[in-house]
Amino acid sequence: MINKNYAKLEENYLFTEIARRTSEFIKANPEKPIIKLGIGDVTRPLAPMIADAVINAMEELKHAETFRGYGPELGYKFAREAVQRYYKNYNIDLDLDEITIGDGIGEDIANITDIFEKGTCTVLLPDPVYPLYKATSLMDGQKIIYLECNEANNFLPAPPDFPSDLIYLCSPNNPTGAALSRAQMQAWVDYANKHNAVILYDNAYERFITDADCPHSIFSIPEARTCAIEFNSLSKTAGFTCVRSGYTVVPKDLVRDGVSLLRLWQQRQTTKYNGAPYMTQRGLEAALSPEGLAEADKNIQYYKRNVKLITDVLEAKGIFYTGGHNSPYIWLKCPNGMTSWEFFDYLLNNVYVVGTPGVGFGEYGEGYFRLTTFNTYENTAEAMRRINELL
Amino acid sequence: MINKNYAKLEENYLFTEIARRTSEFIKANPEKPIIKLGIGDVTRPLAPMIADAVINAMEELKHAETFRGYGPELGYKFAREAVQRYYKNYNIDLDLDEITIGDGIGEDIANITDIFEKGTCTVLLPDPVYPLYKATSLMDGQKIIYLECNEANNFLPAPPDFPSDLIYLCSPNNPTGAALSRAQMQAWVDYANKHNAVILYDNAYERFITDADCPHSIFSIPEARTCAIEFNSLSKTAGFTCVRSGYTVVPKDLVRDGVSLLRLWQQRQTTKYNGAPYMTQRGLEAALSPEGLAEADKNIQYYKRNVKLITDVLEAKGIFYTGGHNSPYIWLKCPNGMTSWEFFDYLLNNVYVVGTPGVGFGEYGEGYFRLTTFNTYENTAEAMRRINELL
Repeated sequence: MINKNYAKLEENYLFTEIARRTSEFIKANPEKPIIKLGIGDVTRPLAPMIADAVINAMEELKHAETFRGYGPELGYKFAREAVQRYYKNYNIDLDLDEITIGDGIGEDIANITDIFEKGTCTVLLPDPVYPLYKATSLMDGQKIIYLECNEANNFLPAPPDFPSDLIYLCSPNNPTGAALSRAQMQAWVDYANKHNAVILYDNAYERFITDADCPHSIFSIPEARTCAIEFNSLSKTAGFTCVRSGYTVVPKDLVRDGVSLLRLWQQRQTTKYNGAPYMTQRGLEAALSPEGLAEADKNIQYYKRNVKLITDVLEAKGIFYTGGHNSPYIWLKCPNGMTSWEFFDYLLNNVYVVGTPGVGFGEYGEGYFRLTTFNTYENTAEAMRRINELL
Repeated sequence: MINKNYAKLEENYLFTEIARRTSEFIKANPEKPIIKLGIGDVTRPLAPMIADAVINAMEELKHAETFRGYGPELGYKFAREAVQRYYKNYNIDLDLDEITIGDGIGEDIANITDIFEKGTCTVLLPDPVYPLYKATSLMDGQKIIYLECNEANNFLPAPPDFPSDLIYLCSPNNPTGAALSRAQMQAWVDYANKHNAVILYDNAYERFITDADCPHSIFSIPEARTCAIEFNSLSKTAGFTCVRSGYTVVPKDLVRDGVSLLRLWQQRQTTKYNGAPYMTQRGLEAALSPEGLAEADKNIQYYKRNVKLITDVLEAKGIFYTGGHNSPYIWLKCPNGMTSWEFFDYLLNNVYVVGTPGVGFGEYGEGYFRLTTFNTYENTAEAMRRINELL
C-alpha cells in the first residue's frame, strides 16, 4: 500500500541543530551581538520593475476583458520566449518546445524523477551534496554512489571509471561554491554520453559566475544536448525564493531506451501540473528582460561585496577555501583540525558568528564549514573583523 | 532507465477533436454565431479585494523591511488558519498540522500518489471520470477497476462488494455534476474503513452545492478521519485557475501499514515542494475570509443563473440529466438514442452550440453529453433558446 522507500529518509537535523545551539547561546548570553553568516536565502528586496510586472498581471485579472483562466501547462509562450532570448545571451539556441516554465528548481528536479524507473537506477552524487538529490533518490529506491569531494580535487570530482544512470551536478555548487570549468564540464558530458547516463544539472547560481572559463549553462558544451537536463531558477538570481519561478530545459536530442525524455517530461507536466501562475510568469518575463537583469544584478553585486570581506580574511590567514567569486557560498577548511561542529561552537562562543557545519551536507563535508554572503555588508564586515581577530 | 508505465498513457483527443470539428465548421460557415457551452474554466474576473491581497503582498516584497525569502513548505500559518476557520463554517474541526497549502487540486492529487507503492495498488475509478486520476494510476502501474455510472444509479455508483486500495471520488462530480448525499458518502466511508482503502476526495466544486443533504466535505462524516484525504481548490470557487492555489487535508488518524499518511505527505512536500508563493497564500487568506467568500460567491451565483436556463429546457423536453443545482456542470442523455459525437455534430450543425461528448470521459459516458454554465447569461440563454426550438 504505502511507498516503503520513505522509511529510508533520514531526518536532516542540520538546521534544527544550528537553531537549537544558537538559541541556547542567546538564552545564556542575551547581550552578545549574534551575526548569522549561515543564511541560505536571499535578503534583498525585489526590484520594483519586476514586482510591478506581477502586480500588473494581477490587475488584469480584475477585469472581464483581460481575465485569464487556465494557462498552458508547460508555460506561456511569452515566458518561454523570454527564456529563449536569455539563453541567446550565452550563444545557446533552444527550441521553444525544449523550455518548460515551473515553480523552481526544487520542484522540477524532484518531479523529473517520475520519468525514471524506480529501484533500478544507479545515481552518482558528489559529496558534500545538496540534500534534495539524495532524498529523492532514496524515495525512489535508487542505488546511490557518492563521489568524494576534497581539497585535492578542489571539491569538483572527475567522472569515475564505472557506469551510472543519473548524475546530479550543481555548479556553482551549493554548499561548496566550487564551479566547473569548461574542460571539467566537457569531461562530465563525455562520460555521460559514453555510458548513456543523464546529467541532472542544477544551475541555480549561474548568475553569480564571474570566471570567463566557467560556462553559464551545460549547453555551452554542444554534446550536452544528448545527455543533460538543465534546471534554472529565479530564486537566487532575482530574489524569487518566496515568489517561486523557474524553468527547465530538456533537449530534443536526449533519448534513452528509445524514448525522448522531453516527451516524457511533457507527459509528466501536462498530467500532474496545471502550469505556473500567470502573474509569476509575467514576473519571470520582466526579470529576464535586459532592464530586469540589470536591476536584479544590483542585488547580486551587493552580495558579491560580502564575498571579498570573507575571502580577504581567509587568504590572510592561509585557510583553504572554495567558492566566493562564482557563488554566494564560501566553503572553508576548519582551522587547527577542528571538526565542523567544533568550529561551529568555537565561532559561536567566541565571536557570536553562526555558520553552517559542512558535515551536515555529507560525510566528506566533515572538517569543513560554509559561510554565506546573504547578510548585510555591515554585519558581514563586523563578523569578519571578529573572526580575523580570533584566528 | 525510463518509467515504462508512461507508454500506457493514452492521448486524450477529446478537446483537440472538439476544437478540430468546431474550427472546421466555422471555416465552412463563417457567418454562423457559435456559442460554446463546453467551457470547463471560469470566466468571471477576480473579486478586487482578493486580487488586491495578492498585490499588497507583492508590494511588501519591494521593501527590505517587509521582504520575505523561503516560506514554510507546508504553508504559512496565516493561510492554514484561514482554512481551519473555513472548515469551522461546516462544523468540522481540523488541526493546523492536518492542513497543507499547495498550488491546486491537480498538483496535490497527482503528487500524493508518490506516497503509495507503485504497481501494487487496486484503484477504483467511477466511469465517466476526470482523466487525471486514470493517467496518474497508469503512470504508477496500478491496477484500475472501473465502476459503471449510469441512469439507474444516478451516476453515483455504490461501493462494490470486493476490496480495493485507493478510491477516487469527486463530488460534486466533474463531468457529471452528480453530488453524493450524506448517506451515499457514509456508505463509501464505511466501505473504505472496512477494507483499509483510502479515499482520495476531490472537493473542487464544493462551493456550488445547494442541497442541504450534500455535505461540503467528506469530513462531515466523522469516520472519514480514518480513511480519507480531501483536496480543495480556489480555482472554481474564487476564480483562481490561473492564480493557482489549493489546500489538502490529511487527518492524523489516517494510518496504513502502521504509518501515518499525514507524515508521508509531509515528507513528500517538505522534500519535493518549496511551498506555495507567499502572495497567493495571501490571496487564499482573503478568498476564505467572510468578505472574500461573499465576493467570490457572487460569481458562483452568476453561473447558477445559467443552470436554470439549461435545466428548464431539459425538463420541458423530458431529457434525463444530472448535475446543475450542486455544480457548474449538467450531464444529459443524448436524445433519440444518439451517440455522444452524433449529438455533438447535431448541435453544432443545427444550432451552432458546442458542448462536450460524454464518451470523452470514459466508456460509460457514451450516449451522454456535458453542458457547462461558464459562458455569459446572454449567450447561455440564446443557446438554450436555439436548442429548445431544435429538440
